[in-house]
Amino acid sequence: MSRLRAAIVGATGLAGQQFIAALANHPTFEITALAASSRSAGKTYKDAIRTEKGAIQWFTSIALPEKVASMSVEDAEQLDASKVDVVFTAVESGPAKLLEPKYAKTTPVLSTASAFRYEADVPLILPGVNAEHAQLIDTQRKQRGWKGYILPNPNCTTVGLAYSLAPLHRAYGVKRVHMVSMQSVSGAGRSPGVIGLDIIDNLIPYIPDEEGKVEKETLKILGTLTDGKIEAASIAVSSTCTRVSVLEGHTEVVHVELARATTEAEITATWRGFGREFLAAGYPSAPPALIHVHEDPFRPQPRLDRDLNDGMTTAIGRLRRDEHSPNGWKYVLVSHNTKMGAAKGCILVAEHLAATGYLG
Amino acid sequence: MSRLRAAIVGATGLAGQQFIAALANHPTFEITALAASSRSAGKTYKDAIRTEKGAIQWFTSIALPEKVASMSVEDAEQLDASKVDVVFTAVESGPAKLLEPKYAKTTPVLSTASAFRYEADVPLILPGVNAEHAQLIDTQRKQRGWKGYILPNPNCTTVGLAYSLAPLHRAYGVKRVHMVSMQSVSGAGRSPGVIGLDIIDNLIPYIPDEEGKVEKETLKILGTLTDGKIEAASIAVSSTCTRVSVLEGHTEVVHVELARATTEAEITATWRGFGREFLAAGYPSAPPALIHVHEDPFRPQPRLDRDLNDGMTTAIGRLRRDEHSPNGWKYVLVSHNTKMGAAKGCILVAEHLAATGYLG
Amino acid sequence: MSRLRAAIVGATGLAGQQFIAALANHPTFEITALAASSRSAGKTYKDAIRTEKGAIQWFTSIALPEKVASMSVEDAEQLDASKVDVVFTAVESGPAKLLEPKYAKTTPVLSTASAFRYEADVPLILPGVNAEHAQLIDTQRKQRGWKGYILPNPNCTTVGLAYSLAPLHRAYGVKRVHMVSMQSVSGAGRSPGVIGLDIIDNLIPYIPDEEGKVEKETLKILGTLTDGKIEAASIAVSSTCTRVSVLEGHTEVVHVELARATTEAEITATWRGFGREFLAAGYPSAPPALIHVHEDPFRPQPRLDRDLNDGMTTAIGRLRRDEHSPNGWKYVLVSHNTKMGAAKGCILVAEHLAATGYLG
Amino acid sequence: MSRLRAAIVGATGLAGQQFIAALANHPTFEITALAASSRSAGKTYKDAIRTEKGAIQWFTSIALPEKVASMSVEDAEQLDASKVDVVFTAVESGPAKLLEPKYAKTTPVLSTASAFRYEADVPLILPGVNAEHAQLIDTQRKQRGWKGYILPNPNCTTVGLAYSLAPLHRAYGVKRVHMVSMQSVSGAGRSPGVIGLDIIDNLIPYIPDEEGKVEKETLKILGTLTDGKIEAASIAVSSTCTRVSVLEGHTEVVHVELARATTEAEITATWRGFGREFLAAGYPSAPPALIHVHEDPFRPQPRLDRDLNDGMTTAIGRLRRDEHSPNGWKYVLVSHNTKMGAAKGCILVAEHLAATGYLG
Repeated sequence: MSRLRAAIVGATGLAGQQFIAALANHPTFEITALAASSRSAGKTYKDAIRTEKGAIQWFTSIALPEKVASMSVEDAEQLDASKVDVVFTAVESGPAKLLEPKYAKTTPVLSTASAFRYEADVPLILPGVNAEHAQLIDTQRKQRGWKGYILPNPNCTTVGLAYSLAPLHRAYGVKRVHMVSMQSVSGAGRSPGVIGLDIIDNLIPYIPDEEGKVEKETLKILGTLTDGKIEAASIAVSSTCTRVSVLEGHTEVVHVELARATTEAEITATWRGFGREFLAAGYPSAPPALIHVHEDPFRPQPRLDRDLNDGMTTAIGRLRRDEHSPNGWKYVLVSHNTKMGAAKGCILVAEHLAATGYLG
Repeated sequence: MSRLRAAIVGATGLAGQQFIAALANHPTFEITALAASSRSAGKTYKDAIRTEKGAIQWFTSIALPEKVASMSVEDAEQLDASKVDVVFTAVESGPAKLLEPKYAKTTPVLSTASAFRYEADVPLILPGVNAEHAQLIDTQRKQRGWKGYILPNPNCTTVGLAYSLAPLHRAYGVKRVHMVSMQSVSGAGRSPGVIGLDIIDNLIPYIPDEEGKVEKETLKILGTLTDGKIEAASIAVSSTCTRVSVLEGHTEVVHVELARATTEAEITATWRGFGREFLAAGYPSAPPALIHVHEDPFRPQPRLDRDLNDGMTTAIGRLRRDEHSPNGWKYVLVSHNTKMGAAKGCILVAEHLAATGYLG
Repeated sequence: MSRLRAAIVGATGLAGQQFIAALANHPTFEITALAASSRSAGKTYKDAIRTEKGAIQWFTSIALPEKVASMSVEDAEQLDASKVDVVFTAVESGPAKLLEPKYAKTTPVLSTASAFRYEADVPLILPGVNAEHAQLIDTQRKQRGWKGYILPNPNCTTVGLAYSLAPLHRAYGVKRVHMVSMQSVSGAGRSPGVIGLDIIDNLIPYIPDEEGKVEKETLKILGTLTDGKIEAASIAVSSTCTRVSVLEGHTEVVHVELARATTEAEITATWRGFGREFLAAGYPSAPPALIHVHEDPFRPQPRLDRDLNDGMTTAIGRLRRDEHSPNGWKYVLVSHNTKMGAAKGCILVAEHLAATGYLG
Repeated sequence: MSRLRAAIVGATGLAGQQFIAALANHPTFEITALAASSRSAGKTYKDAIRTEKGAIQWFTSIALPEKVASMSVEDAEQLDASKVDVVFTAVESGPAKLLEPKYAKTTPVLSTASAFRYEADVPLILPGVNAEHAQLIDTQRKQRGWKGYILPNPNCTTVGLAYSLAPLHRAYGVKRVHMVSMQSVSGAGRSPGVIGLDIIDNLIPYIPDEEGKVEKETLKILGTLTDGKIEAASIAVSSTCTRVSVLEGHTEVVHVELARATTEAEITATWRGFGREFLAAGYPSAPPALIHVHEDPFRPQPRLDRDLNDGMTTAIGRLRRDEHSPNGWKYVLVSHNTKMGAAKGCILVAEHLAATGYLG
């Protein structure tokens, strides 16, 4: 059986490379086009990621696939999306705003950019949490007159939080959330991302726009699709997002108030059992479990836990009652920001869409 | 006028060295005795801090004062406290429990250890916040039959939080606090403290016992002394304490609910004006301001802000409304854990006690 | 076919854990005994690596194998070595000096400790470089009257240097070497190893005893076995060893003077072809190549190159002529200090010994 | 007495800010003009260093002087150099090539850029080492017909090496040098300099063009001025320059061969006594000693030693014989790359020029 043809836009950047790595030897998708800015257009991929000084800018943990190395990079503005079955975009919000609607005329676009996340006819799908929101795609296609559609990934910081909250919300109701993130530098990319002078022996207590994204997206993901509309969940979500000296893996300290009483054992069981039906489908990029719960109080730690199940499982620990709040609980989570929180999470959504008729 | 004689117990450790540095050329106190474990006893200080391999373990930013270098170190268990006017102790809680009551029979003991912090007749004084709690010393002396007394410093993580809350509590009433700390490795000392393998490209989401300390101490400091007893403040304080890859300076992300409405401008003015009366006394170790408020949203940062006024000022930034809570506010603070949060803060208390008749 | 029984001594430490990880699902060896200090004796392995505060001290990149987790840990001093076919020791030099001769009476001992490295009847084998030195084992057994023998691994810093020099020495003759190492913190272990306070925003220009080890061991490895004696190679090796803020992977900057003229292309080819005969044996822990040569001038970098072929390949780059020396060349290498440089390198030697009749 | 008027060009960058900090309250120079790219022109300095997101980009350890904060920034291309007595430039080599000759028509230009370092009529002055090379300025003025002149600072990596070699060369003759540097990230500036993703848990073994600069500049500084020409010293200097995870302070591991035999004690005394005559002049930015020699074998360390005498002293340690080379010695040095190695070193030169009739 032939695989679906995939284009990667923004292929030379950090997030684009994560797409390439995640699609190496993929059973469902085959990379047939690579696009980037006009600066890279016409070069082979390997030349496009080589600097003037000779450095090869390839940053994933697998070797650059030879087939990809020799592929020619197209100008993203000239890319003919109709020649592929799906476009994965990994560009900044600005270019995404211009490029994605062009591609979506003919082809589904799965994106790590925030440009369309907050539009009413655009779902934010977190695999295993709200796959049913995919139906909003039909509305989007109808309203916009597109053959394809735009389906963005949630922000990398939203992903871990929403995974930890979704089972709690379903089982006990979540009323109030305070979250403080300690985010890794890879979340900021490489151009220039976070510079060494700012982060060695230091942390930065502010990431522009991040807190608003996390708060809005969490409510949308946990919301309900009724009559072709997502009604956002009604939870008071407040956050402070910071940057720490960690390469990969976002850590989030969460305080939550539930709607009803429960126990530590119940919550742990709820988390551990979460997503079984979704995982039963056996998608290639899916982990054995969406959530792993630690008993060691010193875990999760980003370096030790980010790579659990190749970065596709959210690790949670330090669950404990907060006696000062009604049904208050506290915990800490680690989520891999460039795997489940970006390219590979996007591909897992694509696998689900392909299996349910929305792709190919 | 002659200076008061001070002994430093635990003089060879990280906290003890901070006492030595903070007392170099001090107008009120003169180091006349150094004590440490029996391993160091009988050596000159310089020899006591030299390892087998020849490394000189001196870790403060000033050069080791020559006078101190050549002083002989005594065994802490043999120290005759009656020969000094004040004992500064910088040892772990275990030894403090045994040593401090012995010294206190004759001499005031100011301590960075937690051993006696939670006893009813022991105040926790934060300079400029609750100096009046010093009166509890009279009760302690009477009850214990001591000529001296034990006066511990608050925990280094409590210090920044309590400084930021005290003015808010006085002006608007504080009802509820959530605090997430990102603490520096120096808070764990050097034996072995936090090891490099655990903290490079990582953070640790748990510091044993720290959260309980912060919660209890904050309420005691903000409490009211009535009839020779401290009535703890009635605030719901909840915290999560973590360790990050920062050398010095604890960062704390705070969410607070006040008892009444106010504005950003009012809170900023309240913080900026805080402690004026106390500072007017002109104590040698006092900073020009107890709190500095930043407008740059990327501040405070531990590396950039910890040394403000030689580590004696709490830097606050990112003040903003939390619309999800009644009178909810969020902010970030940085406080120097080994200066105001430990030895130098202790010395500032000593300066105040000397000026008010409790020392010498 | 049944596997050889292996004991791991020092099983709870960092190096011991690397042995456990490297032997998980190993086709030739099966862990049948674990030993550590008397403090751990009688506990299951999982309990032995759990701290008082509940932290599980397991530090490798694979999950702790369940079988190992539930094995009982023995007191290393009581271990009956005759019940296993090989003992892998991962303890400090002091205990190694006492324990290893006891075990060697009955059983081959492969060790990461330096205790016996410099004795005349003890070879230092680097797989693919000097396997023929294994014959010295016969001499050792005869002289010491042991059924087993002691075979130590070279120091982790020697390993990368000797791999890069061996092909050069064989092909062109090496006359003089200056090496400056920038070593990772894992090389110092965890008790306490390098503490965070010393290595964040810093480096340490001295590692006690390291330079002497590197210089002596390199000459022994590159030496010739004649008449049951190793004659050390005659090369002027000088080094400075430093510690930098890197978790794993030692980087070494090498300046070498060769005995005869050659070209960059020749040296590169010499390195790339090195060890083909040895690798042809297909040992389970052997990499596809012993040396990888980079053309990107910004490589090798420890974080990007240490895990090449699971840490079993030395990465070299920046090869260039030094016009100021006769036949002078400069290059940089990265070698994984806890893989090929320790446990896994030791196991590769064991695989070779098993295939050549020295084990089992 | 009125102070000399100074312009700082490139005032908004990292190096420019070091000039501002070093000139705060300076007895000889007064900042009367600030210049930067046209993007900053017309703004107050404080606005020019504020980003879109509100971050104030001020990076020195002193507070931004209020007078400077409110000064207007000029376009460097429009700066009228004739209105100042000296121009300090802190721009990249490209713009320096265009701007500096324009300024030099009327005014002395002291520069941290490399643009003119290698021209025959341009000296490279290291204070206390080769002040007499200043006479080449007369030649330069004559040849170029300028009222002013261009005097560049040596590269920050050259500075520490040349300080350590100069006394050795004078006393014993230096024949051969191998140097491996471990350079801090501040040496690369902030735009973007070294990014966090590249340097956390890593090092980079290549700094483009750095090695050539170090080798050429060292020979020029140690050279002899004869008949209006500098004859470069005849020393075989070979280096490898790397970047490590350190904020400030370059560490250099040096191997040197001297022309004649000497002892450790003699070398130490030579270093300690070096520069006494120069220092006797009492220039405001001069340290009490140009070289500090450590006996603790774990020193120098960049974090602990870079700030010695406000970054104006080179710290040296680990001096030991290299028995493998004729009159071979090894040592390690730390030099502050943004103080003596850049702006403040440049100002010390300016102080000397002002005292000797070349400025004002």
